[in-house]
Amino acid sequence: MAKAKQTKPTSKLKVFSLGGLEEVGKNITVLEYENDIIIIDCGMGFPDDEMPGVDFVIPDITYLEKNEDKIRGIFITHGHEDHIGALPYVLRDIHVPVYATRLTLGILRNKLSEHSYDVEPELIECKPGDVIRGGVFSVEFIHVNHSIADACAFAIKTPVGTVVHTGDFKIDLTPIDGAMIDLPRLGQLGNEGVLLLLCESTNAERPGYTPSEKNVGASLEDIYFRNQDKRIVIATFSSNVHRVQQIIDTSAKYNRKVAITGRSMLNVVSAAIELGYMSVPANTIIDLNEIKKYNPEQLTVITTGSQGEPMSALSRMAYAEHDKVELGPKDLVVISASPIPGNEKLVGRVINELTKKHVSVIHSGVADVHVSGHACQEEIKMMHALLRPQYFMPIHGEDRHLGAHKVLAESMGMPADHIFVSEIGRVLELDKNGAKFNGTVPAGRVLVDGYGVGDVGNIVLRDRRHLAQDGLIVIVATIDTVERSIISGPDVVSRGFVYVREAEELMEEVRSIAAEAIQECFESDMLDWNHIKGAVKDDLTKFLYQKTKRKPMILPVIMNV
Amino acid sequence: MAKAKQTKPTSKLKVFSLGGLEEVGKNITVLEYENDIIIIDCGMGFPDDEMPGVDFVIPDITYLEKNEDKIRGIFITHGHEDHIGALPYVLRDIHVPVYATRLTLGILRNKLSEHSYDVEPELIECKPGDVIRGGVFSVEFIHVNHSIADACAFAIKTPVGTVVHTGDFKIDLTPIDGAMIDLPRLGQLGNEGVLLLLCESTNAERPGYTPSEKNVGASLEDIYFRNQDKRIVIATFSSNVHRVQQIIDTSAKYNRKVAITGRSMLNVVSAAIELGYMSVPANTIIDLNEIKKYNPEQLTVITTGSQGEPMSALSRMAYAEHDKVELGPKDLVVISASPIPGNEKLVGRVINELTKKHVSVIHSGVADVHVSGHACQEEIKMMHALLRPQYFMPIHGEDRHLGAHKVLAESMGMPADHIFVSEIGRVLELDKNGAKFNGTVPAGRVLVDGYGVGDVGNIVLRDRRHLAQDGLIVIVATIDTVERSIISGPDVVSRGFVYVREAEELMEEVRSIAAEAIQECFESDMLDWNHIKGAVKDDLTKFLYQKTKRKPMILPVIMNV
Repeated sequence: MAKAKQTKPTSKLKVFSLGGLEEVGKNITVLEYENDIIIIDCGMGFPDDEMPGVDFVIPDITYLEKNEDKIRGIFITHGHEDHIGALPYVLRDIHVPVYATRLTLGILRNKLSEHSYDVEPELIECKPGDVIRGGVFSVEFIHVNHSIADACAFAIKTPVGTVVHTGDFKIDLTPIDGAMIDLPRLGQLGNEGVLLLLCESTNAERPGYTPSEKNVGASLEDIYFRNQDKRIVIATFSSNVHRVQQIIDTSAKYNRKVAITGRSMLNVVSAAIELGYMSVPANTIIDLNEIKKYNPEQLTVITTGSQGEPMSALSRMAYAEHDKVELGPKDLVVISASPIPGNEKLVGRVINELTKKHVSVIHSGVADVHVSGHACQEEIKMMHALLRPQYFMPIHGEDRHLGAHKVLAESMGMPADHIFVSEIGRVLELDKNGAKFNGTVPAGRVLVDGYGVGDVGNIVLRDRRHLAQDGLIVIVATIDTVERSIISGPDVVSRGFVYVREAEELMEEVRSIAAEAIQECFESDMLDWNHIKGAVKDDLTKFLYQKTKRKPMILPVIMNV
Repeated sequence: MAKAKQTKPTSKLKVFSLGGLEEVGKNITVLEYENDIIIIDCGMGFPDDEMPGVDFVIPDITYLEKNEDKIRGIFITHGHEDHIGALPYVLRDIHVPVYATRLTLGILRNKLSEHSYDVEPELIECKPGDVIRGGVFSVEFIHVNHSIADACAFAIKTPVGTVVHTGDFKIDLTPIDGAMIDLPRLGQLGNEGVLLLLCESTNAERPGYTPSEKNVGASLEDIYFRNQDKRIVIATFSSNVHRVQQIIDTSAKYNRKVAITGRSMLNVVSAAIELGYMSVPANTIIDLNEIKKYNPEQLTVITTGSQGEPMSALSRMAYAEHDKVELGPKDLVVISASPIPGNEKLVGRVINELTKKHVSVIHSGVADVHVSGHACQEEIKMMHALLRPQYFMPIHGEDRHLGAHKVLAESMGMPADHIFVSEIGRVLELDKNGAKFNGTVPAGRVLVDGYGVGDVGNIVLRDRRHLAQDGLIVIVATIDTVERSIISGPDVVSRGFVYVREAEELMEEVRSIAAEAIQECFESDMLDWNHIKGAVKDDLTKFLYQKTKRKPMILPVIMNV
C-alpha cells in the first residue's frame, strides 16, 4: 500500500466477479488496475441437488493466487455466509488484510477460530465514512440497511472514475437501530459522477418496496398479545440482529424471559451484545437450563432452524430430540423467516411435525412475520436514481434476477449498451472513453466436502448421482488367463438396486450372465482385462435394463492368479 | 351389486384412507359396511428427495386385495394423477368396475392403454346427478369446480347416514364452461343431514378465496395486447382444459394460430376436443411443423413443462434441444402455473436459461397468470356451512393442512371431538350413535422404479442415499485360508468418493490398511469371512473418516480359493 496515489489513467480498470453471477451466493468481485487489485467480499455458496454430499461451494481463486502480490486488500460488505464464508479457505493461500465493520469482523473471527493458519489473518476494523487506501484504489464504507447489522456499500475511487458496489441492501426508512441507509452520501456521489454501478439483484423481479423491519415488530406485538397463555418459540436467522432485538424487546414488554438455543444463535447474540449491537433489558435473558423454573406463558425461546435444517435446534424440538425443550399444545412456534428457494420441503416437514404434536405454528406463509433484507424494484430504481451511473453491471443473482435488473435499468432510460450482464470470470474493461467486455480470467466452483477442498469434481458428482438413481452391482471373479478358467466367482454384490433377499433369482441370472460373458472372452481369445470387464458390463447393463428398466452402475472386478 | 338395499344399521360404517393423509398425493379413501366396500380415487404420489431413483409412489392395497370380493366399485372424482395414477397398477389385481365422468375416463383410458391386462378393466361413464348403487352404498356424482374439467364430489348414502367426499374443489362463481359447483345440491344435502364430511385440505392454510379461472383470462388478454410483436409460448398443466381453452380463445381473438407441443398436452387436448370439453375456432390449431409458415407475432405455442420437468417440451426449448421451436429475443414465454412445492428450483432453472437467451418470461411470481384449483379458507368454510356435517375428517393434505383445516372447522363451532384428524390406515367407525377411531388396516407406500413395483424399500433407499452422499469403495481380495495368505489383491475400486487419479496416495493407503486388516485376522485365527470383511470395513471407515471427514460405503469382497 505504498503506491503513489496519482496514476495517470492511461490504463484500463478491470472489473470481474469470481462468483455471484448466474448464481445465488459465493459473492466475490475483483477490481484491477495495473499493479493493484482489490477484492470485494469472499462468500460461499450452497450446493444444489446436482451436488449430493457436498457441504458447500467456494470460488475458484486461481487468478488471485497467481496475482497475490498485486492484492491490496479484501473489503467485506457484511457478515453473511455468502459474503464471508469462503474467507477461512482463501486466507490460507492469500495473505492480505481484510477490512470490515465491527460486527462483520466479530462474526468472521468466530469462523476463523475453527481453522488454523501459518500466517495469522490481518483483520482491520472500519466504520461507515472510513476511506481505505489500497494501491491506486480508495474504498469508502457507506452505511446501508440489510437483514444484518453493520452492512455497507462501497464507493471506490479508481484512476478512471468512481465505482459503487452496493453490497446487499434495502432502503429501510424506519430501521430498528435508527441508522438509515446513507441516501444523502449516495446522492452526493451521484452528483460527483459515478462511472460504474455494481448493484445487487436478489429481488429485481419483485415489484414495489420491501417493508421495513419495523413491520415485523408490529406482527410480533400482535402475536404476543393474542398468545399470552402460551410459551412462544421463535426461529429466525441468527445473523438478523435487529429481528432478535425486536423479539427480545417484545418479550420484555410482555414480561417474558428469553432463553436462546442453537449454536450459531448463541454465538451471534453474545457477539452482538458484547460489541454493542444489541441491548438487552436486565434480567431478561436466562439460561436454557432455567426454563423449568418458569411457566410456559412467562417464556420466549429464540432458536435456529428457520430453514428446517435437519440438525438445527428447531428441527430437534419438532422431532422430540431436543434435550431441553419439549413442545406440545401449550406452545406456539413462530418461524420468522422465508424458506430460501430449495428449502421449502425441509421447512414444510418441520411444520408438519409440529402440527402433529398439536403445537400452533405461525410462518411467513400465513402472517407478516418476516421481511426480506433485499431491495425490491422501487428501491433498486431509487439506487440507480441517486447514483445515475454511466455504466451498470447487475450482480448477486441468477440469470433471471440479472435479466430483470437490466430491464429495470432500461426502463429508467439507461442505454442498453451501457448495461453489462456478465458471468463469472468475464472481464469488463473501463476507462474514461468507455466500457466493454474483454476476455476472461479462470473462474468456477470449488466443492468442499468434509476436509476435502476441490477433490470432488464433475466425475465424482456424476457417479454419486448415478449411484443414487439406481444403485450398483459389483461383479467379482478370479480368473486364470493361462488356463482360461474362472477360479472363483463370479460373486455378485448389490447395493441400492433391489432388495437382494427378494431378488435371489435375478441375482442368480446376473451371476450366470457374467460367467457366460467371461467364458465367451476366453473362447474368442480376448484375454485383456479391460475387454473382459467391458463385456461383463455391456451384457449386464443390457440384461438389467430389459428386465427392470433400470441402469445400476456395474462394477466388474476381475482378478488374475 | 345384487345386494339388498335395506340393511338394518346394526353394524358400523368404517371409513379410512390408504393415502392422501399426512402427505400430498396418492389419494384413496375406502368406505366399508359389513360385506360391502367402495373405493374413492386411486392416485399416485411423487417421490421426495429421500427417495432417489423412484419414479412414483402408489398406495399399499393389501387390505383391498384380501377383501376383493367385497369391493363394489372404484369411484373417481377427477382425472388428475394423484387421483387416478395408481389405477393402472391396482386394476391388475383388483377386478371391479371404475365409475367416473367422461373426461376422467378419457384420460384414464389413455393411461391404461400403456399397460396390458388379463381382465380388461370395466370403465363406466357417469355424469353429475347420476346415482350408482354399490352394495349397501349409493354414490351420487355432484359437479364441482377444479383445475380440470368434469370434477365431482360424491354424496354417499350409507346405512348409517350420508357421507360427503368433496374430491378436490374450488368455488368458481364464473367458471369457463359456465357450470358452477352445484352449491344448491350441497345445501340440500346439508338440510337432509350429513353424517360425515371428508373435505380436501390443500389450501386450508390460505386465507380468503381462490380467484376465478376467469381472472387468468383477463391477465392473458393484457399480455397478448402488450406483446403483439412477439411469439407467445405458454406452458401450463395439460389437464387444465379451461386454461388451455382460454389460451386458444385469446389467441384466436388476436389472430394467432396455435401450435401444441408436449406429449401429454397433445393427448389431453385431442381428448378434450373429441369429448366435447373444448371448442376450438376453425383454422386456429396448426401442426407444429407448420409454424415456419407464420411470422412470430402470428403464433402461440402451448406446451408442457410448467413444472420445469427436465425432459418436457419447455425445458427442451429453454436448453435449445427442441427440434422444432427455437427461442430467442422475439419470444415471450408465459409459465401459467405455480411451482408445486419441491419444484421451485427446476422451474427457476428454466427461467434462467430462457433469460440467458434473451427470451422474455412472465411467471406466476410476477403476474396473475395462474390461479389455484383448490378452495381457500373462505370456500372451505362455505362447504362446511352448506353441509353442516355431524362429523368431519379432513383429507388430502400434509399434517399442516389437516391441522389448519381442523382449526377452521373449530372456528365455525364444530366440537373438537367431532373432528377426526387421521392417518393412513386408521379406521374411523361410525353409526347413528357416534363416531370413533377403532383400529387400523395395513397401509403404506409402494415405490415404483422402472418395471419394479415394490422391490425398492427402505434398505435400498438408505443405501442409495448413502452412496449419493459419499460414494463407495470396493475392496477385493482373493485369499487362501488354509495357507493364511492373500493370493491376489487387495484391489481397490472407488466411485463417487474422490477423483482417483488425484488421490493415488490415499488409495494406496486404503489398500495397505485393508491388507493389514486381513493379515491380522489370519494371525489371530479369525478365518471366518464375515469377520474378515468386518475388520476391513471397520479399519477403513475409521481411517477414511479421520483423513477426509467422509463416510463412503465400504464393500469388502473376499474370495477364497
